[in-house]
Amino acid sequence: MQRKYTIAVDAMGGDAAPGMVIEGLHKSAAFINKNGVAIRLYGDEAQINPLLQKFPAVAAMSEVVHTSEKVMPDDKPSNVIRRGRTTSMWLAIESVRNGQADAVVSAGNTGCLLGISKLVISMLPGVKRPAITTCVPSKKNKRTVLLDLGANSECNEVNIFQFLIMGSLYAKIICGQARPKAAILNIGSEAGKGLDYLTRASDMVSANKENLDFDYAGFAEGDDIFKGEVDVIATDGFSGNVALKTLEGAAKFITSSLKSAIKSSWIARLGAAIMLPQLLKFRNKFDPRKYNGAVFLGLNGIVVKSHGGTDAVGFANAVQYAAALVSADFNSSVRDKMEKIKL
Amino acid sequence: MQRKYTIAVDAMGGDAAPGMVIEGLHKSAAFINKNGVAIRLYGDEAQINPLLQKFPAVAAMSEVVHTSEKVMPDDKPSNVIRRGRTTSMWLAIESVRNGQADAVVSAGNTGCLLGISKLVISMLPGVKRPAITTCVPSKKNKRTVLLDLGANSECNEVNIFQFLIMGSLYAKIICGQARPKAAILNIGSEAGKGLDYLTRASDMVSANKENLDFDYAGFAEGDDIFKGEVDVIATDGFSGNVALKTLEGAAKFITSSLKSAIKSSWIARLGAAIMLPQLLKFRNKFDPRKYNGAVFLGLNGIVVKSHGGTDAVGFANAVQYAAALVSADFNSSVRDKMEKIKL
Repeated sequence: MQRKYTIAVDAMGGDAAPGMVIEGLHKSAAFINKNGVAIRLYGDEAQINPLLQKFPAVAAMSEVVHTSEKVMPDDKPSNVIRRGRTTSMWLAIESVRNGQADAVVSAGNTGCLLGISKLVISMLPGVKRPAITTCVPSKKNKRTVLLDLGANSECNEVNIFQFLIMGSLYAKIICGQARPKAAILNIGSEAGKGLDYLTRASDMVSANKENLDFDYAGFAEGDDIFKGEVDVIATDGFSGNVALKTLEGAAKFITSSLKSAIKSSWIARLGAAIMLPQLLKFRNKFDPRKYNGAVFLGLNGIVVKSHGGTDAVGFANAVQYAAALVSADFNSSVRDKMEKIKL
Repeated sequence: MQRKYTIAVDAMGGDAAPGMVIEGLHKSAAFINKNGVAIRLYGDEAQINPLLQKFPAVAAMSEVVHTSEKVMPDDKPSNVIRRGRTTSMWLAIESVRNGQADAVVSAGNTGCLLGISKLVISMLPGVKRPAITTCVPSKKNKRTVLLDLGANSECNEVNIFQFLIMGSLYAKIICGQARPKAAILNIGSEAGKGLDYLTRASDMVSANKENLDFDYAGFAEGDDIFKGEVDVIATDGFSGNVALKTLEGAAKFITSSLKSAIKSSWIARLGAAIMLPQLLKFRNKFDPRKYNGAVFLGLNGIVVKSHGGTDAVGFANAVQYAAALVSADFNSSVRDKMEKIKL
């Protein structure tokens, strides 16, 4: 099989690495193969090779690059930059800069992955700041793309405008939205509300209207994340992080309260058993593993952060985000768009 | 009965006013009486009087101040300031400034209520900015106080520090927390993370430690709203508004998905019917009416905004917040605290 693209995978990142990583690759093997993607696996051969024997489909598409060093969960980016240049995470990121890979996926330490990626991989021409991006479930069985989730605590109008552009291209590939509706997060949906730089970002969208591939929906509020009426919501990294953590916390709290209600009596258990297929469908809809993978957009290479505590199903999802983005040539689309817009 | 405090109620604000308002007062009559509170009802006598005949307990504690004008849902504060000084909302707010009432409750237009309150009622001595405050359910059957929810799109360290003080005094009265744990919302919980002014706010707390009635818990993240480990979370009005709208949207989306799952087949309905008592308990826990009422803290008088679409149960809750705060002399506590702290 000819493989046109390569994804560098940090085999040692994540609570259950490398087993979870290799099994995740196994679960996404069909998708990876279909998209003509090869895998470079960075990590400890002694641990990886036995796993590859267990999962031959992964062995068939992977090349192992051995290193015995890895980034630890409590490492600071500055320490890794000084002393960690032979860790699996560093080498995987470096392979993108060297042109050996188009993307990198890691379930390791978020701060280090972001810090090293920003340092090692340059920005895409024209893009001012990277954005951490993910999508969450919304009504009408849709997904909403949210960015930035914390790469930039403060933003200006150019950042927000560029997030709308990158987020919309992302929604096309990842959520299959032919022409996404994109909005700016604000407090109040009427024009002129909230912070001034958001109004300036809004004006920037209007001034570039004919060169954009999305429909601008104006300002959105926090609850619009779930309504399925907009496909992309752009915001600064502080508010985006607050929104994401709040929605994750709310979902966990509500579903755990439902679980307690079910477990509180035998008669409730009986009722739940009777409606089990529907309860499972409900649970499946909000399964965080189906949305696992935060993508750093705007760098000269795709970087995907998987949740550190996820399992093989979640990791497979993160890898598939990377495979979909590289095989759709996401970064070329961003580069083209950046040349056309006026700031 | 001797009534020591007075609450001015805008009888004409809210989708179902004045019926919902008078019935809400009826539902909170025992609480109002117990706290020695009298009601001044601002609105149209022709509509209010027949309702008072229906609810004699409300008639017994209320004085009606007639006006035929009211603030409309789409009114702008500037219009009301120019032409709406005989509306029920304006007059109710003005009664606080005139010393005829200690608090005002309205389910009318939020922007107008906030704008007019800021204009008409002065700030409490020492308080720099008002904060919109509410509480939401959390684990361990507790509540978390959140502020600011949108009065100030941007804040500085003094604002955040004062929000912690006011929010903690609020948690004592409204949530019965003897010594609340209070935190600052940030992205990342380690010291030094996130925005600089939040670190300065944190330092300000430490410098005033011996004069504070709360335990400082450092930085919190969005999901800490629900964990029941901190009782108060202070943030700027932009992030606070995003967090509140996001959690409301997430709760609505998840519970409506559960409802659809239950309604999707007769067998699911059967299962749900069997576990109905537990499902009702679950629903009751997240009933937004139990948390209805956003309080503007920091003004020289308590202002409570009820949701415009709520019913009598929700409105009763908002009125009880006002009654609890005035009868516990909330504003004197804030004033005392402000004299003791160093900024």
